Amino acid sequence: MESRNIRLAVIPGDGIGAEVVAEGLKVLEAVGTKIEPTHYDLGAARYHRTGETLPDAVLEELRGYDAILLGAVGDPSVPPGVLERDLLLRLRFAFDHYVNLRPVKLFPGVPSPLAGSSADDIDMIVVREGTEGLYAGTGGVMRRGTLHEIATQESLNTAHGVERVVRYAFEKARSRPRKKLTLVHKTNVLTYAGDLWQRTVDRVAGEYPEVATDYAHIDAASMFFVSQPERFDVVVTDNLFGDIITDLGAAIAGGIGLAASGNINPERTAPSMFEPVHGSAPDIAGQGKADPTATILSVAMLLDHLGLHTEAARVEQAVAADIVERRPGRGTHEIGDDITARVSG
Amino acid sequence: MESRNIRLAVIPGDGIGAEVVAEGLKVLEAVGTKIEPTHYDLGAARYHRTGETLPDAVLEELRGYDAILLGAVGDPSVPPGVLERDLLLRLRFAFDHYVNLRPVKLFPGVPSPLAGSSADDIDMIVVREGTEGLYAGTGGVMRRGTLHEIATQESLNTAHGVERVVRYAFEKARSRPRKKLTLVHKTNVLTYAGDLWQRTVDRVAGEYPEVATDYAHIDAASMFFVSQPERFDVVVTDNLFGDIITDLGAAIAGGIGLAASGNINPERTAPSMFEPVHGSAPDIAGQGKADPTATILSVAMLLDHLGLHTEAARVEQAVAADIVERRPGRGTHEIGDDITARVSG
Ligand SMILES: CC(C)[C@H](C(=O)O)[C@@H](O)C(=O)O
Ligand SMILES: CC(C)[C@H](C(=O)O)[C@@H](O)C(=O)O
Repeated sequence: MESRNIRLAVIPGDGIGAEVVAEGLKVLEAVGTKIEPTHYDLGAARYHRTGETLPDAVLEELRGYDAILLGAVGDPSVPPGVLERDLLLRLRFAFDHYVNLRPVKLFPGVPSPLAGSSADDIDMIVVREGTEGLYAGTGGVMRRGTLHEIATQESLNTAHGVERVVRYAFEKARSRPRKKLTLVHKTNVLTYAGDLWQRTVDRVAGEYPEVATDYAHIDAASMFFVSQPERFDVVVTDNLFGDIITDLGAAIAGGIGLAASGNINPERTAPSMFEPVHGSAPDIAGQGKADPTATILSVAMLLDHLGLHTEAARVEQAVAADIVERRPGRGTHEIGDDITARVSG
Repeated sequence: MESRNIRLAVIPGDGIGAEVVAEGLKVLEAVGTKIEPTHYDLGAARYHRTGETLPDAVLEELRGYDAILLGAVGDPSVPPGVLERDLLLRLRFAFDHYVNLRPVKLFPGVPSPLAGSSADDIDMIVVREGTEGLYAGTGGVMRRGTLHEIATQESLNTAHGVERVVRYAFEKARSRPRKKLTLVHKTNVLTYAGDLWQRTVDRVAGEYPEVATDYAHIDAASMFFVSQPERFDVVVTDNLFGDIITDLGAAIAGGIGLAASGNINPERTAPSMFEPVHGSAPDIAGQGKADPTATILSVAMLLDHLGLHTEAARVEQAVAADIVERRPGRGTHEIGDDITARVSG
């Protein structure tokens, strides 16, 4: 525990971002931490006003914080990819968030969308690589707009980048009761990258004899998420497959309103960043309808990362209790208030 | 209808391939077509015996057929990607199977794995691009096995390749009652390729004013497949996203045992190829346990492609009737026999 105040940068972002982040901060305050939040105005509004996405000076300022809480990024008024790439992905890359940690857990009381599954069956954690793969942004276009156009995207994978996230995943697996790690990839088609991932898992596995390892192609894994979610304990996968499978994970675990995530820099050479898995949902923005639970669970992950384990557990327990007693039709504030009351009470 | 015999090349392939293909052929015979099958020994066994995957001479011979029926390809005794790339993908590429057509349909009587969905909600068709994208196989590796290894994969997308499959998808959408087409991609990250796909859909949409178009990111689409499958009518997407989403589609529509596919060359400059979506399932091979229904439905797609629409409908109806009256515990032969009896009767 720190004696000085913990400095938190808050980026509400676009759409429902500001609404859900406000509830997250309310819970953070109620749980009694010495966390001092500073808001940053980044996202579509600033882009339209000034043309800026993430000025270099702001990036450097953010580097000085202990952690970042982010709402959501993306707006239909901005061309696809501009805010995602120049703001969200830039933060993940600049701060070396190579672990994108996404629990997939069906809370007791949440009706599973899967006919045959219960809370016992769906309890895994996806360790998504966060700084490489197809997210590198390399590629290009030639003869744009003509019959002869060609557009390419490149997936870049390095031994350095793969090994560090695989090690993290093995550590996670070792710490859990089932101690099982599944690599998800597409080694039969993406032979170069797949070979690097598979060899890395095989090699590191030697150091973790107590962890059982397994492999599933991304297509089969997507099927198993629906038909046999109990197959998975810890999943390690690349950036794009992780993106897909964690949204699918959110769907099987009761919806995107509950899915939390942490963009982690395990060496703490830069602040880690916590955000709900959901997007900015412009269609319901400003209406007080968004479920802030995913943000509140991300706040719990943030507390945990900062070493405030007791506080993290209290937030998680408050959410779990709130879910069991859910009244239908609550809005953003009411859910936030209900969870805040439990955290304080 | 042809007066000469229709020439069909049959590639049983690996694992359960031979078992399910045998049932498909039984149904094909029972439905009374003048189809003459020729078997080709390709797959793991031949690879181990001769080192060959798909000899050039065999490829040229296959080109002379009216259609191909394939069981499954892939075996753990062969390094990942060898058979997939040099046999299955080589056929798709050489015969320009740019449309990989995969219906996702919950048959009445099949229990949906989704708690809230019924047969009315799940009835879509995925038009997966079959010859480009990350399946191009380009990429490479440098400093393999060292700390400085880098492995790349490239997604290649051409105006030619994207436009022809998008047009096919619009034609499909126009022919269906709901007339809705959803592009699935990841335009906010794969900005070069995504831009080409989105622009192509927007442009071709002008020629199909009766078709409503929509867009979903692959991550959101994966979620919607579980939470709101009724959102989709025709889906058009690239090779890799299509691979993932059709296995997910199989899962929500009652399992991989029912999912059929056609690798179509719409201009008929080479034979089209029909195969179940499932793989070779080496764990249950040779045990008479595999469900041949996916292959039998692929046979219906084959008949349809050859202009034998009445026969195709009879096979489909026989499958639908068989599904409603499913007895549990039937093996491969029994399911094949039951459907055959309905087709003949
Ligand atoms: C907004 C987008 C760039 C982002 C991603 O693809 O990583 C989002 O989908 C997520 O999963 O955090
Ligand atoms: C076996 C494999 C190469 C293939 C693919 O990825 O296309 C399979 O998964 C499929 O969907 O037909």
